[in-house]
Amino acid sequence: ALGGLGLGLWRWQRAAMAASEEEDEEEEMLRQRFMAPPVSGLRELRQRRRELRSRMELLIMETQAEVCRALAALDPGAAFAVDTWERKEGGGGISCVLQDGEVFEKAGVNVSVVFGLLSEEAARQMRSRGKSLKAKDGKLPFCAMGVSSVIHPKNPHVPTMHFNYRYFEIEEADGTKQWWFGGGTDLTPTYLNEEDAVHFHKTLKEACDKHDLKLYPKYKKWCDDYFYIKHRGERRGIGGIFFDDVDSPSKEEVFQFVKSCAKAVVPCYIPIVKRHCHDSFTPEEKLWQQLRRGRYVEFNLVYDRGTKFGLLTPGSRIESILMSLPLTARWEYMHTPPESSKEAEILEVLRNPKDWVH
Amino acid sequence: ALGGLGLGLWRWQRAAMAASEEEDEEEEMLRQRFMAPPVSGLRELRQRRRELRSRMELLIMETQAEVCRALAALDPGAAFAVDTWERKEGGGGISCVLQDGEVFEKAGVNVSVVFGLLSEEAARQMRSRGKSLKAKDGKLPFCAMGVSSVIHPKNPHVPTMHFNYRYFEIEEADGTKQWWFGGGTDLTPTYLNEEDAVHFHKTLKEACDKHDLKLYPKYKKWCDDYFYIKHRGERRGIGGIFFDDVDSPSKEEVFQFVKSCAKAVVPCYIPIVKRHCHDSFTPEEKLWQQLRRGRYVEFNLVYDRGTKFGLLTPGSRIESILMSLPLTARWEYMHTPPESSKEAEILEVLRNPKDWVH
Repeated sequence: ALGGLGLGLWRWQRAAMAASEEEDEEEEMLRQRFMAPPVSGLRELRQRRRELRSRMELLIMETQAEVCRALAALDPGAAFAVDTWERKEGGGGISCVLQDGEVFEKAGVNVSVVFGLLSEEAARQMRSRGKSLKAKDGKLPFCAMGVSSVIHPKNPHVPTMHFNYRYFEIEEADGTKQWWFGGGTDLTPTYLNEEDAVHFHKTLKEACDKHDLKLYPKYKKWCDDYFYIKHRGERRGIGGIFFDDVDSPSKEEVFQFVKSCAKAVVPCYIPIVKRHCHDSFTPEEKLWQQLRRGRYVEFNLVYDRGTKFGLLTPGSRIESILMSLPLTARWEYMHTPPESSKEAEILEVLRNPKDWVH
Repeated sequence: ALGGLGLGLWRWQRAAMAASEEEDEEEEMLRQRFMAPPVSGLRELRQRRRELRSRMELLIMETQAEVCRALAALDPGAAFAVDTWERKEGGGGISCVLQDGEVFEKAGVNVSVVFGLLSEEAARQMRSRGKSLKAKDGKLPFCAMGVSSVIHPKNPHVPTMHFNYRYFEIEEADGTKQWWFGGGTDLTPTYLNEEDAVHFHKTLKEACDKHDLKLYPKYKKWCDDYFYIKHRGERRGIGGIFFDDVDSPSKEEVFQFVKSCAKAVVPCYIPIVKRHCHDSFTPEEKLWQQLRRGRYVEFNLVYDRGTKFGLLTPGSRIESILMSLPLTARWEYMHTPPESSKEAEILEVLRNPKDWVH
């Protein structure tokens, strides 16, 4: 199945990077671990291995590879295309996309590590609670990195899944560094399956509970509030966890929490895909999936902060940002499912979020 | 073909409205002219027949019926569903939608006439150039009316067309009334057909030239600027005309100009539909159409002022606003048409707008 990862697409510049035998070995090790060479370069990551920035970059790289491998194993005929890209203003990213597979309609797992100078306005937009930031000459040095992913399966009985884990640093005029983490994992089923919903939320809760019992309830609610399509009065999906601007209790503790969440992505989602990817479905079920995909597009283009920020940021890579959109979507005028139908059942849960774990 | 307009859906309250024989005749006449009874009611429109508000309401009702009839005549198997709706805060509308026809994938022609009180903030958003408005107790009495329409045909050789003509009135604290008109008609082809582009622009130019030779060039450019998908570096389509905030030389003169534009909708578009609705097409052409539909969705949800304003306005009718979205759309990661292909040809024109009429 790993053949599907497309070793042919691997753009590894051996000669340029492997200066010694030791580095050569490390390179070989990383080649097996990651989808492409890290943005910051192996040498820099090695030199600054104790810094949180470097550890976070390794975590997002690892998460990308883990998720891509788990997905590719379920869709043996399809291959992830791996694109590395550079940002003129600083940094770059690695986009892994599997399109029109047997199991997945579109699966994207994106890593980006960008840095440079932010305007005060952009810095304010970046930080949701709008803490004041003092800039030197109106510009703030920043670094933003994250892994983000949306998986749209073909079968309407397999839910769409999204996750994103990110880290920011901004340096103020007086040299103080502000830092914070954000992230989350959430599920968007076409049809409600209680067992799947419970498994998904339970796995996330376990990841949170290792750190603080207050986290899951708080971030579960934040997720329900964030993924709200106001003009429809519906949430995008059945939630999961979501958090932003987290900068306490300590950098190390938040990093460990984020790591637990990132490690929970495969176990919370892959079993659900396995369970349903061969379920039979009707054309009517496929149609309902397409209408729900339309709502997904509405949320992402109208409300999602990450998408909006990306579209407004000069030098951002549009194809990687809009990778989150489904391959196909549908909008019917005045579509209303009949009462007590399976379609009405999921709508009810999207309108009134439930507690899945007690 | 007019059978397709669905007289069964006509919600005409005969007994309640026809008080005299004269009114009875007038009602019969209007029944033939309009898709549904006007929002303001026949009696009020009769009583205030000299006021511009009433004349504009009749114009948008007439335009709606003209366009619906012309479209229905080309798609004899399909029927326009006619929905009348009320807005709790004041006013209402009439939505006419033909979905999944033989010729049209989705064709919507919407009239709305709404009034009530606006917050200063909402009033500012309504007026693109942000003139200052003085409110009594922070609220401004307003009236907004318009006809708006998006036609998405099935055949990729028939372009999508959009038009919108609207009128606003806001009353300031001291009783002065600000008024302005806005509108436009624009074309979004999947493939470039020069003859169609020239016919479309020429018909619009003729409508403008009757009033002032400066209008077409000015509003053609405004259209190219407005329908710009910034994150793609492309326009939504090959343009047409667009204007907003127009309040000179006089109310009567602007109304006459808007009337000429509204009357040009059928002659600028219907001949193009007739010419191509039976053209043969390949699955690849249909796919390119679906990708272009994706861009249409991106523009409407991310940039379109009318859509954004509608989604944010309490009490607005979401189904009528999002009627503009295509029935189906598609997003492929990193899709790039080959050089010198027909797909690259239209992209070139969307990136660098052309003058179609000299």
